[in-house]
Parts: sequence; C-alpha cells; structure tokens
Amino acid sequence: MNLSSADRIVADLRVWLETAPAGARLPSSRELSERYEASPVTVQKAMRMLVALGLVESRPGSGSFALGRRAAARPLDFSWQTGALRSAAHPLPALSAPLRETAVDKISLHAGYPAKELLPERAVRAALVRAARGDAAIVKSPAGGLPELQAWFASELASVTPSGVTPVAARDVLVVPGTQSALSSIFRVLAGAGQPVIMESPSYWGAILAAAQAGVTIVPIPSGPEGPEPADLEAAFAESGAKVFYAQPNYANPTGAQWSPSRREKMLSVVRAQGAFLIEDDWAKDFGIDNEPTPMAAYDDTGHIIYIRSLAKSVSPAVRIGAVIARGPVRERLQADRNAESMYVSGMLQAAALEVVLQPAWRSHLRSLRGQLRERRDLLASGVTRFMPQATLDHLPRGGLNLWVQLPDEIDLPRLVQECERRGVLIAAGSEWFPAEQPGNFVRLNYAGPDPARFTEGTAVIGAAMRQQLDASG
Amino acid sequence: MNLSSADRIVADLRVWLETAPAGARLPSSRELSERYEASPVTVQKAMRMLVALGLVESRPGSGSFALGRRAAARPLDFSWQTGALRSAAHPLPALSAPLRETAVDKISLHAGYPAKELLPERAVRAALVRAARGDAAIVKSPAGGLPELQAWFASELASVTPSGVTPVAARDVLVVPGTQSALSSIFRVLAGAGQPVIMESPSYWGAILAAAQAGVTIVPIPSGPEGPEPADLEAAFAESGAKVFYAQPNYANPTGAQWSPSRREKMLSVVRAQGAFLIEDDWAKDFGIDNEPTPMAAYDDTGHIIYIRSLAKSVSPAVRIGAVIARGPVRERLQADRNAESMYVSGMLQAAALEVVLQPAWRSHLRSLRGQLRERRDLLASGVTRFMPQATLDHLPRGGLNLWVQLPDEIDLPRLVQECERRGVLIAAGSEWFPAEQPGNFVRLNYAGPDPARFTEGTAVIGAAMRQQLDASG
Repeated sequence: MNLSSADRIVADLRVWLETAPAGARLPSSRELSERYEASPVTVQKAMRMLVALGLVESRPGSGSFALGRRAAARPLDFSWQTGALRSAAHPLPALSAPLRETAVDKISLHAGYPAKELLPERAVRAALVRAARGDAAIVKSPAGGLPELQAWFASELASVTPSGVTPVAARDVLVVPGTQSALSSIFRVLAGAGQPVIMESPSYWGAILAAAQAGVTIVPIPSGPEGPEPADLEAAFAESGAKVFYAQPNYANPTGAQWSPSRREKMLSVVRAQGAFLIEDDWAKDFGIDNEPTPMAAYDDTGHIIYIRSLAKSVSPAVRIGAVIARGPVRERLQADRNAESMYVSGMLQAAALEVVLQPAWRSHLRSLRGQLRERRDLLASGVTRFMPQATLDHLPRGGLNLWVQLPDEIDLPRLVQECERRGVLIAAGSEWFPAEQPGNFVRLNYAGPDPARFTEGTAVIGAAMRQQLDASG
Repeated sequence: MNLSSADRIVADLRVWLETAPAGARLPSSRELSERYEASPVTVQKAMRMLVALGLVESRPGSGSFALGRRAAARPLDFSWQTGALRSAAHPLPALSAPLRETAVDKISLHAGYPAKELLPERAVRAALVRAARGDAAIVKSPAGGLPELQAWFASELASVTPSGVTPVAARDVLVVPGTQSALSSIFRVLAGAGQPVIMESPSYWGAILAAAQAGVTIVPIPSGPEGPEPADLEAAFAESGAKVFYAQPNYANPTGAQWSPSRREKMLSVVRAQGAFLIEDDWAKDFGIDNEPTPMAAYDDTGHIIYIRSLAKSVSPAVRIGAVIARGPVRERLQADRNAESMYVSGMLQAAALEVVLQPAWRSHLRSLRGQLRERRDLLASGVTRFMPQATLDHLPRGGLNLWVQLPDEIDLPRLVQECERRGVLIAAGSEWFPAEQPGNFVRLNYAGPDPARFTEGTAVIGAAMRQQLDASG
C-alpha cells in the first residue's frame, strides 16, 4: 500500500523512535519539513499521529520528545489460556496464499484480487466522494440493505430471466459486507456442525475455509474443465444425505470450468429431485472473456438456487459489497443469521457501490476489462506453454482470473513455491483448493495481478525452478 | 433517510410505475425537470436508475416508456424448503426494537444509535472524502487491520495503563467491521454450541443475540446499579464450569451500571482464579457524562481480559469500525475465525475512522458531546419523574445513552409499547435485554435519539398510557 506523505514521515520516524532513548528531542518542524519535502501541515499531521500513538510528547514552546519504549513490567505468561481454550472445535488454517500482499519488487501470480489498474478507479473515487456528502455517510442502513441497491442486484438477474420464469424481486436480496460473510452464514444456517455439504474438488479456498469454520463435513465430487458430472452429484447426495451443494458454474475458481447449458439443466434437475439447495457462487460475473456468463439462478423460480454475487473484486476491494439472493423461507433464515452476525452493512459503501454500477461508465469499464483480461490470460498462457514445457495447461478458461496448471508428480510443491519466491515470483500451491487429498500437483496462476509485462519472466522463473528439481531428482 | 433529488424522483415515479401499463410513456425530461424543480443532470440520473432497475425502457428519439410489471409466471411454491431446512439449530429472533428505524413524525426513545446531531458530521464527511482520494479506497487492507489504526486502538488503552502493568501493543489489536461481528467470533471461538457463557442479567441484546447464534448456553447472574456481585460470579463459574464471562463494566446497556474500582478488582480476581476470560465490552467509551470511563483491560496484562471497543456509535454508523484487543494464544484463535468470516475489513472505512480520531476536533467533539448527553439525560429523567409517577428510576446513569425504568407489575408491557406507538412514541420493552425470564416490567428509554425538545411530551404520552391501563385494571 502506498502511503500518504504524513504516513511516510510517521513510518520513518517510528524506525528511529524504536531505539531512541526517552526524552530525545525530535528535529524541529522546519527541519522535518525540509528533510521530507513536505508542507508544514503534513508535518504537523505526522506529529499529531505520533503523539496519538503514544510515541512522542509535545511540549509547547520547547519541541517534541521521544517518550521511549515502555519496558515490559515482567515477561508475560499466557500459558493458563491453553486450558481455557481447549482444542479448537473446528481448527482453521493460517492465512491463505491468495490473501498475501502483493510486493512491488516481486512478480505476483498468487493474488486473489485484481490489480488496481483493472479497477474503475476514477468512478470508485468519485462515487465515494459523492456518498461521503450524502446521508449514507452518517445514518444507519436498513437491515436488508439500501432498497435501491437491493433493486439493482435483483434487476441484474431479472434482466436475463427467460419468459415463463418469475424473476426475483428486490425483497429477495440480502446485501452483505463481502461474500465470504455470506458463505459463513449459508453453511451455518443450511448445514451446521457435522452436517454434509457437497462441493466440487478443487473448489474455492474461501468456501472451504467457511465450511471449516461452520464445522460442516465437505463431501467432494471431482470436477474437470466441464464441471462435475451429474451422476457424481446424484451419488454424493444419495450417499451423504446432504441438502446443500456449493458450486461455481461460471469460470470456477480455480479450474476456470464453465458448465454447458445442457449440464446446467441436468445438475439443476438432480438438485430439485433431491429437495436440495444449489449455492451458486457467481464470483466472476464481471469477468467474462470469451462469452457472457449467465447465472443459473435466472432460470430457477422454485427457490432451489441461492445466488451469490460480489462487487469487491470488480468495483474495489475497499467497497466490500455483495449480495445473496434467495427465495422462500430460507431467505428469512439467512436474514436472521445476518442480523446476529452484523446487524447491518455500512450504508456509505452501499451508496458508493450503487453509484458506480449505475454510471454509464460502468458498462464501458466492463467492456474494456474484458479486453485487458483476454490479453493478460493469453500472455500468461503463452508463457506457460513456452517456459514450462513440463507443465500441463489442458484448458484455457473462457473467463475468470486464473490459470490452473498441473505439474509433474515428481515436483515437491512446497519447495517449488519457496524456490520461486526466493527468485522473486509469488505463486499459490494448488493444495489450498482441495477440500480433501489432492490428486496431483497443481499451481494456480492469477493473470489479474500487477505488471503483466513481467508475466513471461515469471513463467520463465517457474520453469527454471521446475527443471532444476526434475534434473536433481532424475 | 433523506433522499438525494434523483432518488426522490425515482421513488416518486416508482409509485406511478407500479400501476402503469406496459408501454405507457413517461413525461419528457423537460417536464420532469420542471415538475421536480431538478436539473437536467439529476433527471437524467433518475432515468438511468429506472432503466437499470428494469422498470423503464428508453427509446432514443421517442422518449421513455414503462416496461410494466412482469406478472408471476405462476404462483410460487417454496414448501419443499421446509424439509430441507429442518428446524433451526439455533432459532433466532426477528429484528430487535433498537434496530427499528427512527421516524420523523414519531418521538423515538427506542433507538440504539445516537441521532445525527450528536455525531462529528463535518469531520466524518471530510475524513471520508480524504480517504476516497487515498490508496485505501482501492486496495485490500491487511487481515488484522491498517497498522496505524491498530496502533491507535492500542494507544487508547496504553495511555491509561498504570506503571507496573505492561501495556498492549498494536499487534494485539484486531480491527473488526463492527463489534457485533466480534461478539459472534468470540462466542463461537471461546464457547461454541452447548457451552456455557456467563452474562449479566439484564445484558446487551446484541450479545444475547450473538450468543444465540453461536448456540451457547447463557448463564445469567443478576446485576443492579452497581453491577453484579463477585460472589454471584464465583457461584456461576463453579456451577456451570464456564470459562467465559461477558460484561459491560462501564455504563452497562441497559442499566447504566458502572462497577466501582474495588468491585472491578474483586471481579478480576474471580475471573483469574477460575482461569477464565472476561469479555469487557466497552461500548460507551466515548459516552462518559459524570466521569471518565477507565477500561478494566488497562489494568490487566495476564491475558484474562478480551477488550471490545466500537467507533460506529461515536464516529458514524456508516463508519462501521471496531476493535478486539486480546493477548496470548486466544488472539490467534480469534484472528483465524475473523479470516474465515470476513478475510479483511474495508480499508476505506478504516482510513476514515483513523482520520477522524486523529483530528484535534475529535477531542473537542467528545467534550461537547458530554455536555449534550448530560442535558438530554437530565431532560428525559425529569420527564420520567414528572409524568410517569408510577414508574421507578432508581439510578441516574453516569454515562451511556439510556435510562432503565421499572414499571408496575400490573402493566401489560407489549400492550403499552403498542399503545405508545399508536400515540406517536416509540419505546423498547425491557424484555429483549433479559437472557432468561424477566424479573419485572422494564422499558429502556434512549436519550440520544432525534429531537430532545419532544422528550417531555414523550414521557407524558407514556405516563398517560400507563395511567389508562392501571385505571382500567384497578
């Protein structure tokens, strides 16, 4: 994250303050102003922050002084907590690879969020400024969301709903502060501890994480470039007694699979026949490349599909707004869980999101994004083909943000990830996307990160690191 | 919520569109501009929204036309969901009274959030505008929060930590998107389904709700104007085997109780002797009236206190930012649950919150707020004394936002709430604050709502409604 000038001064002085003795005098405001080429207002702001952080004391008339680190009164011992905490009921993994920060000096192929240059930055900033001036900045939002934003999410589905199917309405929409939160609610409410949920394997790591948090038992079914087989789904329902199937029918993360119209129909029939729910996570609605992704939910008015849509990846990760669209009693059940979890969603962020998607610039942004993603996908794919001949890329995704690449079984994957990082390339091991054992070695390469000019270099580094391992083992 | 002019036009036209036949022509832009006294740009924006909402079709050159409501293809039947949903594992109540919207034509004594005029509105708007222009508006925040905001939350505790106690550090702070979410995580992680959690009775309704969501068993201990008795806490620990005690030692919601220094010491000794956690919910840190609230967490470096602090009520409900401060392994356990629940918190809101609290205007705002709250509290209390002689207000809170008023046992509370609403006064029945049976009739009257000039009138209405009931029953 880039810093404002005041933040930069604070960061710099904090390094000095770490070791400064208590009472050491700081340079004068004029000196700081010169040293950092910053205005007196900026320097003043930085000093206020240091005072607020308890690092500096300001004595009017005589200057600013280091307060010095307070030594720990004694070594702290929290070992008693071991007993109180017991073993975790549902142990959760540490931070996932796609959440790791991108680094300016590294080639980042691991990330889960598109780089800044792929966002409608100007529109986002303008929308936030406008929202900051409206009522949404200082009043509480209604529990289900801002009515106009609910209506917009509904209209997105309704506009592609064929005749003969009753389209969703605004009241079917729950606005959520990010879809991760929605996944948590859905798995808690529809399954709960010890209950089965069917998932594709591989599947989105965030969904696997939310399922672990809810303590549900994941029932994996295999998924390839065309998505899972209806027969496998049917068997999984029969064997597990599950009532919930979580999937990404459009440009699945990580495989990029898109279900064909006939497969969609068959999958929905299976779900209906089982009296079950399909959780359709339409994470890549705004990331179509070779075709327009049509939500399955547009074809269902029987309440069997619970639809999830996110704006955090296409508008801005700071405008963390998503929606769950559900019909029937399940909607009330989900709303009650959302109330208990967060009560309401910041109206400021909702108003800004609405402002962005209602601008004419939004449609033209999505069109230009499509072209950029195509170029980036093709660039990275050609790098893989050229510099990683030992790898298999059996399918070019028609949308989404990722290539799913299989590596030879002889590769030591954790060691490869480390080796690439040492050489300045961040990649994500495929293991995080498997709810159970992984059937082979995979890496997910994201083509939405910063600096596509270095994609080729990135694949060359991965290829060289692989060759080294294979040569050593062979 | 007030509407922008475009929103107002949309809202108005939607009423007309509800009944308009498909193909009906809308008034021209010029006519709309005149009718609503709005600029052409505003009218254009409103039309764009109506088109985006799928209500209107725009045919260039000939005007805009109603698309007409799409009739439901058939009556929708979701009864199959009953089987799939089963009974709720942890049934949750519908929307709570304090979350109900305030209404301009009603006297709102029920609300949980301070009225707009008690917020630092100018500073909030300026901070949001500034944040909209910075990096925080378009990049992802780190999982634990913005480091400078973590440091600020830590410094708030560290600045009142006595010598001999090791103050908390920035790394002990988890930034959360509202403290309701923090309560959910804490009850999930530290107790979980079927496990006991000790709470004051009455206690904050949001905590009772979060406990219900996690499926924990609430063990209530009585609490009066001085807080609960250490002996009661000790007995509850011994009987239930609980390892968690949730409380609000400063200006408890709803009673307004503040624990004395000696009681704090005793309560903390009990918690430590039990090898347990005290969850200190410091919801009213910014709402001291007769004294400064000192957090108990400032006196603990043994990891027994988990401290919760919110800015949503004192900065803005739209800047939904809070913090959990915890030390030792429990912090990691909580961080893992937060990752699974929401991954990260909008950096935009974090940057704005930090900007507000670092301004010199923040301190002066809090000083002026104190005076306003005192006036409002005293005004409402004198109304209660004067116009509700049948009620008992045994304790004027030294801070917080609420009066906790006991009514005679003969009163039919749900009927009183309805009767007051019919007469234009919204109040909250005390029942929502009791985790188990309520030992008497209570109402919570909030003195932070809009329009204090009408507080007296409000108490007169409640008094009259009570008299009517008592006369009829006597």
